[in-house]
This record gives sequence, structure tokens and C-alpha cells, in this order.
Amino acid sequence: MTKAIKMIDHIPTAEDIEHAEAAIAPFVHRTPIFTSSLINEMMGAKLFFKCENLQKVGAFKMRGATYALTTLSKKERSKGVATHSSGNHAQALALAAKLHDVPAYIVMPQDAPKAKVAAVKNYGAEIIFCESTLKAREQTLEEVQEKTGAVFIPPFDDYRIIAGQATATKEFIEDTDGVRRLYVPVGGGGLISGACLANKYFGHHLIHPMEIVGAEPSGADDAYRSFLAGERIPMENPKTLADGLKATLGERNFPIILSHAKEIVTVTDREIVEAMRLIWQHMKIIVEPSGAVPFAAAIKQKDMLKNKKIGILLSGGNVDLESLPF
Amino acid sequence: MTKAIKMIDHIPTAEDIEHAEAAIAPFVHRTPIFTSSLINEMMGAKLFFKCENLQKVGAFKMRGATYALTTLSKKERSKGVATHSSGNHAQALALAAKLHDVPAYIVMPQDAPKAKVAAVKNYGAEIIFCESTLKAREQTLEEVQEKTGAVFIPPFDDYRIIAGQATATKEFIEDTDGVRRLYVPVGGGGLISGACLANKYFGHHLIHPMEIVGAEPSGADDAYRSFLAGERIPMENPKTLADGLKATLGERNFPIILSHAKEIVTVTDREIVEAMRLIWQHMKIIVEPSGAVPFAAAIKQKDMLKNKKIGILLSGGNVDLESLPF
Repeated sequence: MTKAIKMIDHIPTAEDIEHAEAAIAPFVHRTPIFTSSLINEMMGAKLFFKCENLQKVGAFKMRGATYALTTLSKKERSKGVATHSSGNHAQALALAAKLHDVPAYIVMPQDAPKAKVAAVKNYGAEIIFCESTLKAREQTLEEVQEKTGAVFIPPFDDYRIIAGQATATKEFIEDTDGVRRLYVPVGGGGLISGACLANKYFGHHLIHPMEIVGAEPSGADDAYRSFLAGERIPMENPKTLADGLKATLGERNFPIILSHAKEIVTVTDREIVEAMRLIWQHMKIIVEPSGAVPFAAAIKQKDMLKNKKIGILLSGGNVDLESLPF
Repeated sequence: MTKAIKMIDHIPTAEDIEHAEAAIAPFVHRTPIFTSSLINEMMGAKLFFKCENLQKVGAFKMRGATYALTTLSKKERSKGVATHSSGNHAQALALAAKLHDVPAYIVMPQDAPKAKVAAVKNYGAEIIFCESTLKAREQTLEEVQEKTGAVFIPPFDDYRIIAGQATATKEFIEDTDGVRRLYVPVGGGGLISGACLANKYFGHHLIHPMEIVGAEPSGADDAYRSFLAGERIPMENPKTLADGLKATLGERNFPIILSHAKEIVTVTDREIVEAMRLIWQHMKIIVEPSGAVPFAAAIKQKDMLKNKKIGILLSGGNVDLESLPF
């Protein structure tokens, strides 16, 4: 994928998502789908867990970051890529850049968890620390871009990112049959807007098309409120253990979700921890709080899922083993 | 597999292991083999992790228990099966019995972890509590057998169990190519004696046959000492975090290991926890302390493994999330 294509300036089409899939294939895992007979028994339904926690860098973010990078021209690549993030997008962009031999500049708040700083450094990115306000992060990023000429790769509010994240749901659709509802976590909306598009283009069930259900922490429920209001309501002071889902829905992400998602379900931190525990205990895989949110939402809707096939997008598995919520 | 075969009274042959494999296939997972580029980089070698932590009941024990059960006659099955164990064998036998609609009686010490008691109960087994001495356990088991007529299914010192556990290594051999050393945990010796036999019968590399390496906690190093002495030395007062590996090597297991294993490597609890942490962090899967022992042994031998393909048998993933060693 050395040939650069134009930055996508429109809602991704089926062809865009197929292009993204081919472009990232050498750099990401086609993640497995796990099932658990104990969890199926508990739920009275058949659950299919798409394991993006087993993706490179431990999160689906590797898809979008890699795709955005492959769309850059040779000249753009030579100057590098930049972003501000203390989460999975930072690690994803750092590794994607390393694999493409492109410099990466990651602006991180001074108080970012040491494990995450170490991971980003480990992938060879240059870290620029700043104060932990959004304003300081944006300003520092601007300075870095001015100095280096690096291209900003946003975490979710970007059509290339959406096309990249859509590949997770495209794979899920190809690897399952007859799933009625797919639960997807909502933070900035990159993953779920991609899920909506992949389902629209590649969903194959004519009589019972799969529904995309957003799952959100009640302490960061801007997507829930925005979805009901029909307009984007910014999140203020989010408070949840699911740190990956604190962002406000992106401008480009919201209309796609509003048009194509079935509903947004909110869950408490307590419900998130319980869902996380069930996954760890019965499936023996590590999922971060944000990644457990869609299963928590499915548990909440248990009564309406009886005997159905249900999909759960386990978005990531990056946790700090020294401070687990159990 | 309703046709009963005679109890194996000889060291399992290739045909016995193939028979076991066919008999248990409907009841166990063919577990996946995982790799991690970060761990490979760290080790300077290519590691292949056989994920028996993703096996039913979260441990390879499901293989042997299931096979032993399938060899029982209709009459034997009608009276049920029994064992004493507070560990993975108890869960495995309970589930195997449930799947075959056979009564199961599990003798457990009063102080067994509540999570394990709950799991066994969840599989529908009848639990008989006793004091936590080996003597009390054996005596209680005898009483249960007298009362019920149930057949005792031992955890490791049994040729049927060895044939069943051997299937894990048979699968590993089929799913990899050119692996030079396979690290296997040693407790009672069920898994590793099976590994030795599977490797002997099904290992396909003529120039560099795969070596089976035992991995043992230094606080329960009877296999290491027995292997050096050439005779079985019982373990007294084992002290290790790896609770699954405290047992003394079985009578039937020891000669097989002595003849066919390359060496036994011991590791400290600290090394075990570090190996466990690396697996959790980089592979996003849950492995119990006993299951991390073979990787700890490989780390210890890192210098001699450079550029080689190495196998690691991750034996189980049952941990108490409330008391993790991190």
C-alpha cells in the first residue's frame, strides 16, 4: 500500500471500507470470535464476542490509525504524524507509524498512566508532555505540527478513521450468521459509526437485518442524550471507570449513528465491572472497562434477547494490572 | 462414544492417544495457538502458546477427565464418578460427568476457595466436604465410593488420564512446524507424561526432534529432584503460589518423564508472577500462576533459545480475581 489515495472527504462508501480493509490487512489481526457456553446459558441466548482486545496494541484503534496512515502521500509521511491522546489511539498511531517507518509525535498529559507512556515510547514514538487540559493538549499539538510539519491523525472524528474501524464489523458480519443485534461501545463514535456503515453495506440478512446498538457509560452519556435530542450535545465532566468512552461524539460520527443505530443503552460503572468480571472469569480473556460496556448493555436487555444470536464488540484489553476494579 | 473400552492398563500407545482424541472431540475445544510479536521481540525467539486456559473449565484437565469417563461401562456410569480435588480436576470431572449425564461426587476440603466450590456446584456435582488433610480426603472419598459405588477418577496417576492429556500436545504438534522445545508444567505429571508420549509418537521432525522440557516451581521441585536422582522423591510441604503444581509426581507418570523429557527447569514464585504479568499484559489472556510456569522457565533459558521456535503449554486460567498477585 505505498500508493497514496486522497483523504476521504465524504461518508465512507462500501468501496472505501473495502479499500481500507485491503490496505490494513498486512498490519492488523483478523481477530477471532469467541463464545462461552456458560455465558450463553446465563443469558438464554447465543453471544458472539468479536475480540478486538486481541488486536495489535490491544484495541480496534489499530485499524483506523493504520488506515489513516496508509492514505498519506510520501511527502506527508516524511514529516510524520501527530496526535494528542493518552489512550489506545496513541499506542495505535505509534505502532502504525513504526510499521511504516514514519515519525510519530504523541502529545500526552503529564499525568498519563506510566504503563501507557511506556507502551507509546516502546513503539518508538516521540512523546511531548503537556498539562492535562484539553486546551493545553490542542495547543501543544499545534506547536508540534508547526515545528515538524507532521499530519494530525484524529482519534475518531475523521472519515478515514471511520472507514478503518468499520472493518471490525465487516469481519464480524462475514464470520457470523443470523446475528440480530450487535452491541458496540460509544465514546467519540469512531467504532460505532463504522459499525453502522459496515452493517448497511455488508449486512446480509434481508428479513431480520442486524441492529446496531450503542452502549455507553451512564457517567458519560452524551451519545444517549444526543441520540434522543436529535442533535449533538457535548459531554461535560464525564465520570466513569470506562476511561476510553469519555470523549464527546464526533461531528462526523454523530449523523451516521443517528441515521443507522437502533438505540443507545447506558450502563452504570457497577454494571460495567460486573460484565468485565464475567468475561475475565468465564472467557479467560482480558477486557478493559470500556470494552465490557457492550456486554453490560446486553445483560441489561437480557429479557428481550432470549434465544437470539447477539454480537458483542469487545473493543479493547488495555488495563493497569496494578489497579483493577475487582 | 457410548461404546465402552477396557481401562488402559499399559502405557498409552499411539492408537490409545488417537482413540482418546476421537472420544473427547465432541466435548472439548481444540484450543488455539497464540503468538505475540512483543514477546517474540523480547525473547529473540518465536514463541507458540498453546492456550489450554481457553479450554472448557479453563484447563487441560477437561481432556483427561472426559476421556476417563468415556471409557466407563454403562453400569459403571450409572453409579457415577468420584474424586477428591479442590482444583481444576474437580471442575473438569464435574463438567465431563454433567455432559455424559453421569452423577459426580467431589470430595473437597472445607477451606477450598469459594469460587471453586461454586464452579463445581454449578456443573451439578455433589460436593462432600472434609478436613483439608490428604488423609481425610482419601478416607472421605473411600466412604463416598462405598456408599455410592462411584468409580474413582484420579487426577493424574492413571493411563487413561495420561492418554487424554496427551491430546493437547498432539494438537500442538499438528498445528506448528519446527518447534525445538516445548515447555510443559509439572505437578503430578499428567500433562507432561502425555506430552512426552505424543511427541514420541507424533513428533515429525527427524533432524531436530522437539524436546519436552518440564517446568516446575522451586517451592515444589520434587520432579526436578526425582529426575536428577532417577527415582521418585515425594514432595513434602510444597510452598508455591502455583497451587496447581503442588502434587507429588505420580507413579505411572514418573518413568515416562524420566525416559522422554529433556530436563526439568525450576522457577521462583517471583519469576512465575513476572511471566504471568507478561502474558496478561501483552497477550490479553488470563493464565493462572501454574499456567505461567513454563513461560517463566523459557525466560530463564532465554539465551539458549535465540532465533528458535519454542512452544509453551499454557495449562490453565482459573484465578481468583479478588486475590491477584500483582
